[in-house]
Amino acid sequence: MENRPLILVTNDDGITAPGIRALIKIMNTLGDVVVVAPDSPQSGMGHAITINSTLYCSPITVDDGDQIEYSCSGTPVDCVKLAVNEILNRKPDLCVSGINHGTNSSINVIYSGTMSAAVEAGIEGIPAIGFSLLDFNWEADFDQAAEHIKKIAQNALENGMPSDVVLNVNIPKLRKEEIKGIKVCRQAKASWKEEFDKRVNPQGRQYYWLTGKFVNEDKGEDTDEWALANNYISVVPVQFDLTAHHAIQRLNTWDLHD
Amino acid sequence: MENRPLILVTNDDGITAPGIRALIKIMNTLGDVVVVAPDSPQSGMGHAITINSTLYCSPITVDDGDQIEYSCSGTPVDCVKLAVNEILNRKPDLCVSGINHGTNSSINVIYSGTMSAAVEAGIEGIPAIGFSLLDFNWEADFDQAAEHIKKIAQNALENGMPSDVVLNVNIPKLRKEEIKGIKVCRQAKASWKEEFDKRVNPQGRQYYWLTGKFVNEDKGEDTDEWALANNYISVVPVQFDLTAHHAIQRLNTWDLHD
Repeated sequence: MENRPLILVTNDDGITAPGIRALIKIMNTLGDVVVVAPDSPQSGMGHAITINSTLYCSPITVDDGDQIEYSCSGTPVDCVKLAVNEILNRKPDLCVSGINHGTNSSINVIYSGTMSAAVEAGIEGIPAIGFSLLDFNWEADFDQAAEHIKKIAQNALENGMPSDVVLNVNIPKLRKEEIKGIKVCRQAKASWKEEFDKRVNPQGRQYYWLTGKFVNEDKGEDTDEWALANNYISVVPVQFDLTAHHAIQRLNTWDLHD
Repeated sequence: MENRPLILVTNDDGITAPGIRALIKIMNTLGDVVVVAPDSPQSGMGHAITINSTLYCSPITVDDGDQIEYSCSGTPVDCVKLAVNEILNRKPDLCVSGINHGTNSSINVIYSGTMSAAVEAGIEGIPAIGFSLLDFNWEADFDQAAEHIKKIAQNALENGMPSDVVLNVNIPKLRKEEIKGIKVCRQAKASWKEEFDKRVNPQGRQYYWLTGKFVNEDKGEDTDEWALANNYISVVPVQFDLTAHHAIQRLNTWDLHD
């Protein structure tokens, strides 16, 4: 390609996480890569932004790839805002976030810093994709899905993205030859049943750890959970117009007027 | 009413903020109120949850109302999870969040801790409403819209909520007699143009403050921004199935298969 596309890479596990290193390597084959990622893990940060404290952002060299990198003290969403408004001299052609260490399928999209970074890029009008591997292990094997990741990113660069939509891509923990392909899906209707682990600190005060069990009661075969359970990579188009348009009519029957 | 409804109250400005104190006062007239709210301001936390640190939650008395209150070290979403799973002995009939000091209309719904608390309650199957006043002032007058807030909450208790939907209610900064009424709306398509305020710290290192300008280019007269600009309270039904169903067909035309 004469003019190589400009690709912004970020994540929520921190700039040195193996998942983002693998994603950078793939993106270096597709375009000019600039990385702006958190200097520390930011999992579960959702769409948090830093309002009440200062942000730092500095150039850093992590490995010998062709990318240019910046390490940022903020959340994944802060990283995208800083990249677009302060670091890059033009709007990137693509923003990719991840590869997350662990799933962001189904309702997890809402808690995910990885996906919030992609959504923030989408709000800024940039085609954006979040990638997650269903393996929480720090030493997870991110290479097995490298060709699929490259293919999805290439499609986004070539076809553009449906407007006001970003992609949530989840990858099953399988060897390359076991992955059956890619399925476009809807978000499964599932949720977490919380179980708080109650403990007592050395000063005698009770505290909690948030834990829980993921429960999927959605039996549809068009969901991301179904695809992943059946050895497919799931691609869910995600929107940031949160309006439940179908509910407007019913709410207009409420007695809200004098 | 024989059996008074159980109402969970939370917010993101912290348990002592005037906005939540006003909301508690209104809810005390409608049911038995339990407050579980952050012990410090959590604005802009989005749907963040606390995974990598401990959570504290203790009974507290803030004023002489009838409500029972707990102060929690976590995010607004943590507060709802703790309330539902550890503090309350049954599922509440309603969860209200706010009254936020400042707007959560349009795209702000995505960054808002106030609305994320309501969304979390919705995920747990609880009818939920986030209330926000378009006045960032700590001493804002939350009493002007008290009757409207009560009416919306009463409707939710009496009619139930459309399934998998929560309400985002924004209130213009007006005197009671200037408020024209309540309008059910869609989320305006608007965004923030960031402007980072660059400074240098005493050690000579550059840092940033996130600031920005809200830009609404959506001219629709069915949006929350239009309603607020025209002296109405806006009610937007918000969903947490983020699937852009309309985009699935187009993505299926991509070359994703071997």
